[in-house]
Amino acid sequence: MNVPAPSPAQVFDWLDVAAEKRAAAGLSRRLRPRTAASRELDLAGNDYLGLARDKRVAGAAAAAALRWGAGATGSRLTTGSTELHTELEYELARFCGAQAALVFPSGFTANLGAVTALSGTESAIVSDKHIHASLIEGCRLSRTDVAAINHVDPAAVEHALATRRKPRALVVTDSVFSIEGDLAPLRELSQVCRKHGAALLVDDAHGFGVLGDGGRGAVHAAGLAGEPDVVTTITLSHSLGAQGGAVLGPRRVIRHLAETARSFVSGTGLAPAGAAAALAALGVLKSEPGLPEKVLTHAMTLANGLRAAGFRVSSPEAAIVSVQAPSAEAAAEWGARCAEQGVLVGCFQPPSVPDGVSRLRLTARADLAESDVDTAVKVISESAPAGAAS
Amino acid sequence: MNVPAPSPAQVFDWLDVAAEKRAAAGLSRRLRPRTAASRELDLAGNDYLGLARDKRVAGAAAAAALRWGAGATGSRLTTGSTELHTELEYELARFCGAQAALVFPSGFTANLGAVTALSGTESAIVSDKHIHASLIEGCRLSRTDVAAINHVDPAAVEHALATRRKPRALVVTDSVFSIEGDLAPLRELSQVCRKHGAALLVDDAHGFGVLGDGGRGAVHAAGLAGEPDVVTTITLSHSLGAQGGAVLGPRRVIRHLAETARSFVSGTGLAPAGAAAALAALGVLKSEPGLPEKVLTHAMTLANGLRAAGFRVSSPEAAIVSVQAPSAEAAAEWGARCAEQGVLVGCFQPPSVPDGVSRLRLTARADLAESDVDTAVKVISESAPAGAAS
Repeated sequence: MNVPAPSPAQVFDWLDVAAEKRAAAGLSRRLRPRTAASRELDLAGNDYLGLARDKRVAGAAAAAALRWGAGATGSRLTTGSTELHTELEYELARFCGAQAALVFPSGFTANLGAVTALSGTESAIVSDKHIHASLIEGCRLSRTDVAAINHVDPAAVEHALATRRKPRALVVTDSVFSIEGDLAPLRELSQVCRKHGAALLVDDAHGFGVLGDGGRGAVHAAGLAGEPDVVTTITLSHSLGAQGGAVLGPRRVIRHLAETARSFVSGTGLAPAGAAAALAALGVLKSEPGLPEKVLTHAMTLANGLRAAGFRVSSPEAAIVSVQAPSAEAAAEWGARCAEQGVLVGCFQPPSVPDGVSRLRLTARADLAESDVDTAVKVISESAPAGAAS
Repeated sequence: MNVPAPSPAQVFDWLDVAAEKRAAAGLSRRLRPRTAASRELDLAGNDYLGLARDKRVAGAAAAAALRWGAGATGSRLTTGSTELHTELEYELARFCGAQAALVFPSGFTANLGAVTALSGTESAIVSDKHIHASLIEGCRLSRTDVAAINHVDPAAVEHALATRRKPRALVVTDSVFSIEGDLAPLRELSQVCRKHGAALLVDDAHGFGVLGDGGRGAVHAAGLAGEPDVVTTITLSHSLGAQGGAVLGPRRVIRHLAETARSFVSGTGLAPAGAAAALAALGVLKSEPGLPEKVLTHAMTLANGLRAAGFRVSSPEAAIVSVQAPSAEAAAEWGARCAEQGVLVGCFQPPSVPDGVSRLRLTARADLAESDVDTAVKVISESAPAGAAS
């Protein structure tokens, strides 16, 4: 380096340049903290069953904090495992039809751990291009050949598996893609995997609690629960309204993750309150198996209403309804105007949209009233930017 | 591939081979869940101030779950930010003397986010070889030149900075190394960084709450808090007894992370109970500034007792006391025998020990009694394998 070193005050000047670029492209993001008394209509979160504030679930979290303490105090391999974690793992596995489960402090770290520990230098990875950011990071950490193939294209997956240079292979997909809300063809993917001796890893973060018999998820719905070559990840922070993530699969997979996954071994375990909340929410889901159907019905009604108003709306397969916006800036303005009218919607822009199309992302919840859906359609329609409706 | 594809039942056979290899090398690990009534002497966790089960802290977690719900319901950029998160970020920054702070759902994801968002293809990374696994993963995700230099060697850091091929640079270190418990020379590293226009990122997970004025951490103790070229990460799950992590630094750094760090943007926010517990624990630390000193005193007494018994013991600089074991298997047996006698100790073996030396890792807590330390020295000594004492 022959140029003078920047002064300490200049070292991060490049961040201002990056911020200006984001602002110029309409891609600035802001944290908008909510109050406890917030009464806005929430179509932006992932609390699909409306259980985060359910008294049974929040009460279980509170009781666990008092009984077990506020934190897990260490890695799950030292002091961070409690009987609560074990019970949650047992119940999750039993509910979903898997042999075993392992609970992580977040869905993000569960995905990192599953991808990295189940691939490695001897295993090719074949992934859908639209998988969640945490899976992409896991693929990048795996130090192996990664083929990111076209969205929802089992033939391309098969080609990649057939032409791979590694003895093993791991196929990685979301079940319900997190932004657009469309489904992966899990049965076809499994058939392709089996033809080529590959394992299948499915992130069911947006399917668990919404799809399948009683909310058992997309993997269960596809008849793949309990299969010896299929591994599922879920979050505890979506349908279960808590915090954390979990991996479900064959017992030897779970044991391998518990002993070797860096994001499991080298971090503090999930707080007892999170484990207890997830366990209580699972109990609610078991006792009210009609909850998932309500989510799907509301999603459909919402999509139909917006389509009738002329917008480019996805056909929802789960809780997520995706509405295309004419531009990144228009999406941001649209979302902001909805918020001003008391309706919270997700606003996704590059680089968070895998196809580059900015959109509103709406999520249905089991506890929406019909009038909520009507209000949402009205506010979103009235707030729409020019060019949003055809 | 000209060999027949394995059957579905055989796809994960390689995991059994890996498990057998670990077992043969004495490197198997097991989850040992504890009960709520557990009365074992815990020298294995990272709850340095003994606040995880403090009524003020656990009570705040419980109250927050009831008031705000069991989970954050979404990304911090959609529905996952509450006024609790904002208050915690303000108080953490103020306490540590930083301009701003950003709370993540785990320390692991805070480190991933900080390393990746503050490096990039235009920035070389220079790291200490012994940094925490989450920082290593962050370096590997950064798609740039990474120089992992010898442990605690500012001259080697300087050489790497002087010979780098990238215009920018980020130096990454732990403040207190998590296994051995030794300190990084933060002042020297900062001087080297400034000479070469590099930013300094310090993981103060094991310094915050234990070192510095009133527990403000190692970065504060080194006079680097609030500096424009220094960024600090901490956990909320160690000294604060909760869950989560945080990044502290210049306002533009925090803004950049909130808008671009994948592990922040693309995951559910920290549960309200975790944020409230951390906030309450910070209040306890402020009102009882003598707590950190107690940790250091107990660590010293513990180390002195074990050294007098003939073991190869580190000189503790913070809460961590490291005791060398003759082999991986001996370390595992030693730890298991201590547990049978009611004393929980950490047992670290390859690949979790950066220098390949298996060891017991003991942690002091502010709420230990003198008799606890005596008991620990007695049990650890009596449980020692052949060859552990000189």
